[in-house]
Amino acid sequence: MSTHPDPPLGETMEQLGRGAVSAASVLALASTDVKNAALAAAARAVRAHAAEILEANQHDVAAARAANLSAALIDRLALSEPRVESMAGGIEEVMALPDPVGVTAAEWQRPNGLRIQRVRVPLGVIGIIYESRPNVTADAGALCLKSGNAVILRGGSESRHSNAAIHACLLEGLAAAHLPAECIQLVPTTDRAAVGYMLAGMTEYLDVIVPRGGKSLVARVQQEARVPVIGHLEGNCHVYIDRDADVRMSQAIALNAKMRRTGICGAAETLLIDRACVETHLVPVVRTLLEAGCEVRGDALVQRADARVRPACEEDWYTEYLDAIIAARAVDGVDGAIAHIAKYGSAHTESIVTENQATAERFLQRVDSAIVLHNASTQFADGGEFGMGAEIGISTDRFHARGPVGVEQLTSYKYVVRGAGQVRP
Amino acid sequence: MSTHPDPPLGETMEQLGRGAVSAASVLALASTDVKNAALAAAARAVRAHAAEILEANQHDVAAARAANLSAALIDRLALSEPRVESMAGGIEEVMALPDPVGVTAAEWQRPNGLRIQRVRVPLGVIGIIYESRPNVTADAGALCLKSGNAVILRGGSESRHSNAAIHACLLEGLAAAHLPAECIQLVPTTDRAAVGYMLAGMTEYLDVIVPRGGKSLVARVQQEARVPVIGHLEGNCHVYIDRDADVRMSQAIALNAKMRRTGICGAAETLLIDRACVETHLVPVVRTLLEAGCEVRGDALVQRADARVRPACEEDWYTEYLDAIIAARAVDGVDGAIAHIAKYGSAHTESIVTENQATAERFLQRVDSAIVLHNASTQFADGGEFGMGAEIGISTDRFHARGPVGVEQLTSYKYVVRGAGQVRP
Repeated sequence: MSTHPDPPLGETMEQLGRGAVSAASVLALASTDVKNAALAAAARAVRAHAAEILEANQHDVAAARAANLSAALIDRLALSEPRVESMAGGIEEVMALPDPVGVTAAEWQRPNGLRIQRVRVPLGVIGIIYESRPNVTADAGALCLKSGNAVILRGGSESRHSNAAIHACLLEGLAAAHLPAECIQLVPTTDRAAVGYMLAGMTEYLDVIVPRGGKSLVARVQQEARVPVIGHLEGNCHVYIDRDADVRMSQAIALNAKMRRTGICGAAETLLIDRACVETHLVPVVRTLLEAGCEVRGDALVQRADARVRPACEEDWYTEYLDAIIAARAVDGVDGAIAHIAKYGSAHTESIVTENQATAERFLQRVDSAIVLHNASTQFADGGEFGMGAEIGISTDRFHARGPVGVEQLTSYKYVVRGAGQVRP
Repeated sequence: MSTHPDPPLGETMEQLGRGAVSAASVLALASTDVKNAALAAAARAVRAHAAEILEANQHDVAAARAANLSAALIDRLALSEPRVESMAGGIEEVMALPDPVGVTAAEWQRPNGLRIQRVRVPLGVIGIIYESRPNVTADAGALCLKSGNAVILRGGSESRHSNAAIHACLLEGLAAAHLPAECIQLVPTTDRAAVGYMLAGMTEYLDVIVPRGGKSLVARVQQEARVPVIGHLEGNCHVYIDRDADVRMSQAIALNAKMRRTGICGAAETLLIDRACVETHLVPVVRTLLEAGCEVRGDALVQRADARVRPACEEDWYTEYLDAIIAARAVDGVDGAIAHIAKYGSAHTESIVTENQATAERFLQRVDSAIVLHNASTQFADGGEFGMGAEIGISTDRFHARGPVGVEQLTSYKYVVRGAGQVRP
């Protein structure tokens, strides 16, 4: 018997691309019922195969430990029974979302009688490049399926056994609904060059790439991709406490924005405080943060508020800590806050705390971020909290999709025009 | 006196980029009245300086003749008094369009009381790369200004004197409204490397690039750009005449779709006819086209309809003639037409002629083009005809903007969230 070497990578990727395009044309026309049947069956399969998924995950975790990968990475990688159940539940949540495909987003009639509709259609084929979290396989697969897009998933090599086990469940779902297996494909190789192919070698097949992972992955994708990208680089989010802010509300919002969960992109990283209310607001807000276990790095004024405040340096204003650390400084009113955010921010999510409506409107209008909030925590920056359902990320791009990217943002549109024989004069 | 060499190109382009970003932040907040005042003054300036514009244009035309450039290019390049007047009128039309910036596109309230709005904002800085038509300077400048975007214009070197004269009028408009001159900048050099800078060296400054020109320009931009692109590659548009089509309507639509103007992207390039109605519909439709001076290139069946029909080869089905030539073939009903369009089309604009509603709906749903029409000419593929006003082009991209790209499509959005102290549980 001869040995069968793996086919060259280019051939493998071409085959994935062709399969995806072909599946996408079927999936674009699939009814909501058929897509939901596939999702329901996939969720059932995840539950039925929980033991296999956990076993595969143990392989991955053991290999990660053996390779001395960081504890944070192993935490993102490791699955548990509740995490598998929440993966199944996540698929069912996506199933319950309204189907965006075929929805008429706008409709009008022209004086010549032409009736024009703008109708949502899938984007086509989506490439997802992600790192260690295996649940992305289920989440992204489900979101793409619901939005009628074929997807090519490229997970981190450290989660390959977990991803394969979860992918098998998604395939069961597709088979149950008689949808092509190529609707959801997993790149079958851990060859790192596969990412390069997705970024630059598959322009013919991929309509968009979504990177899910750390800053360096997203930056690489945005730099190298020859297809459109939906990505968020980082969430360097700000809370600005205005002179007309309620003190208790300032404390509650600063605390929640920073400390509810420190590792999410909507977590606040810098606290800006109006110089005009330093006397009244600064000490209670800083103490609340310090007492909750948050490190505060402040400018000279903030350092005076509490001996535990450490000095901030210029780099702190640019930093997304994703940790229990916050930078804090005084600014000259709302315009000072707007200027600081324009200079140092990442255009993700910013909040103003004030009882002054005019000041709030100035901030909401002039801060050029995907999400701007008045008197609310930045941790609401989330598709679910927006009522948009599960999301594939929070985009800080200005193009196509900005803010939470849910099933609707994974669609394009076409114009359908109905006439009665009109010709153009 | 020392000579002053031109600054290095990179420095020039960086300066344009920085100026545009700075102007964009002012323009994003400019009121509709201020933008309209600038447009009104620009239109007045175009009329007041018509003689200078025509004189500058004569320089360009003379140089183009001396360089033996094609008659078609010289026709696109040459201005006349009516063309200058229509440029001024075009600016006023854009002025009359509704301002998309600040419009609330969607609005809802969450159970926790948060009020969420999706509000349109400008994209930021737009780069336009175009070829010989000087009117693009006015059209694109006006569209970007109205949509609140700063623009960097890079016209063809053959139209540089014309572009500079028109640009001077736009600057008069900006000055009259006290808007920064950097809202509309013209790349001041004809160095071809400037295009390379815009495509790959100014990612920090440009939010999107729009190529306006022939297939090779658009293909180059789509291939090399490191920033998002809104482009249309070509309009290989189809008219399908179904077995249930009215014969007279078929003649009228085929004639208009092909011959009203042959040089626009919405002109039909291929006629598909249902094999089931070849006997009744083919001869009248083909004769109508031939008698209007159109060359018909047909498959064997179409050739039998009239001795003047020439044979079509495989390449004809892919060709955007932009001329009085049409390819024609018989297909097996609506599904044959859908399959032909999927294989050879450019996903721009396609029309079905039929009295059968079910057949029409099948075509409208299954043909994956930016614009699909029923019983209407493909020449309606135009922002003005859609009631969307002037447009910067018809996008065949699926991402961000598809179909006519008017002022609304030149915007992004942000989420504005108003609360009363909500924190996330």
